Parts: sequence; structure tokens; C-alpha cells
Amino acid sequence: MKLLRINHLGIAAPGLDEAMARMERLFGMGADHTEDVPEQKVKTAFFPVGESRLEYLESTDPEGPVGKFLAKRGPGIHHVCFEVDDIDAAVSQLVAKGVRMIDPQPRAGAHGCRVAFIHPSETGGVLMELSQEGRA
Amino acid sequence: MKLLRINHLGIAAPGLDEAMARMERLFGMGADHTEDVPEQKVKTAFFPVGESRLEYLESTDPEGPVGKFLAKRGPGIHHVCFEVDDIDAAVSQLVAKGVRMIDPQPRAGAHGCRVAFIHPSETGGVLMELSQEGRA
Repeated sequence: MKLLRINHLGIAAPGLDEAMARMERLFGMGADHTEDVPEQKVKTAFFPVGESRLEYLESTDPEGPVGKFLAKRGPGIHHVCFEVDDIDAAVSQLVAKGVRMIDPQPRAGAHGCRVAFIHPSETGGVLMELSQEGRA
Repeated sequence: MKLLRINHLGIAAPGLDEAMARMERLFGMGADHTEDVPEQKVKTAFFPVGESRLEYLESTDPEGPVGKFLAKRGPGIHHVCFEVDDIDAAVSQLVAKGVRMIDPQPRAGAHGCRVAFIHPSETGGVLMELSQEGRA
């Protein structure tokens, strides 16, 4: 498996309005995309940086994954997502090695991507997501 | 100011040997560079991912910045570093806006880079570093 690039860096934030105001104040940057992801119980705003993006995440439910993260650790970097060229092969390789996965099979993500999270117990406390772009 | 790319993602780890073993197991990747940074009280190992790198950080002193982070939050993502084309102009702009900086003036970093950290109180709990490559 080859990690092609950092697809995005997920950042847990109390609110997207505040996160967008910070990015404007610090870097003069606006979001190029916002999206609700109800199945993950978040609203998201994306900021492009080179070949990567910052994905700010606002929780819509304290019982969702970002809501729990915010309650436990406070705002900050939540996960890193790596682009791979063949996510089915990548996940199969990891499962065959006995690597513990949050998603033992790829599932649908935003923008038509297919994604899978590795369990942080395997990655030294870093939540790592793999993604394969769905846009042809 | 324009953020050109994610230069690197800093990850606090209990030990580099374990971090390198994890990267080999998960992704078949080896470090392309290791470096001691005594002034930051860390040893580092870099893994290239696209135009960015993962920088694993092992603390050499519990009183150093990474040692304190590990004691407080445990292993995980410590900071994100953005490449800018003119760090003097970037830091001057931030200071002029009243943005709180850990480094109100750029200082020497690894590889001949010049770097400056923004205070996390300004960035929603994310430790952000700016860097300008020194290699001509």
C-alpha cells in the first residue's frame, strides 16, 4: 500500500462559525465547501492547503464520535486521512495482518469517497482514516 | 499570507523505535530522515506522504514541550506545520493583527528552515507552526 497524500486533517471544533472566523483572521482563508454528515453527527467545513484540506468538524450530537472527543479531550486535531489508490486492497492487506480496524470493510464517505478508519490502538493514539477518491 | 502546503504533521510518541515499527507494519514505510533536536528536547523520524511528511517526536526530557504533552494528553498528533513563502511577512502580519504567538519572530528550525509557532489559544486548540524552507 502506498499513502499518496494527506487527503485531509480533521479538526474538532466547538462551532464552525468560530472556526471559520479564526481561519479568516489568521490566514485570510474562507471555506471552499461545507457539508452536513448526519451519519457521523457532524457539520463540516473544508479549507484547501496544497494537495490537502483542513476539515473542521462541529458535533451535532454529544453522543457522536466528535461530540465524545470534544467532551474528553477538548477542541483540536481529531484525525488524519490518507489518500490511497486502492482502498479495497489496502484494507484487505491490513485485515490479513491482523490490524484492528474500526471499519473492517470500506464504507461510503463524503464526496463519493470510500473510506475506512484504522483503530487508534494500532497507530499510537492517532486516529487514521484511509480514503479513495470516488470522482472519476 | 498563503498556506502553500502541509509541510509536516508532528506526532508525539513514547518511542521512535515503536513508531517506526508501527509504520512498517501498517504501511510498509520506512523513515527517510531521523534527527536529534536537542533545543526542543526531542528525537525525530520523518515519513514522506505526498508533498507532506509525518514527523514522529520522541521526548528526551519530561520537561520539554513534547514530554509535557505526552504526560498531559498521551501519544497522538501534536502539531501541524504549514509551509509559507515568506515567513517574515507572515509573522509580521499576524503580530500586527494582535495574534498571540509562541514565536513573535521566526527562529531557526530543522533542515535550515525558519519557523514560528502560533499560540494554540488563537487556533482553537490546534498547535500550528509556520515554516519557510531554507534550501535554495
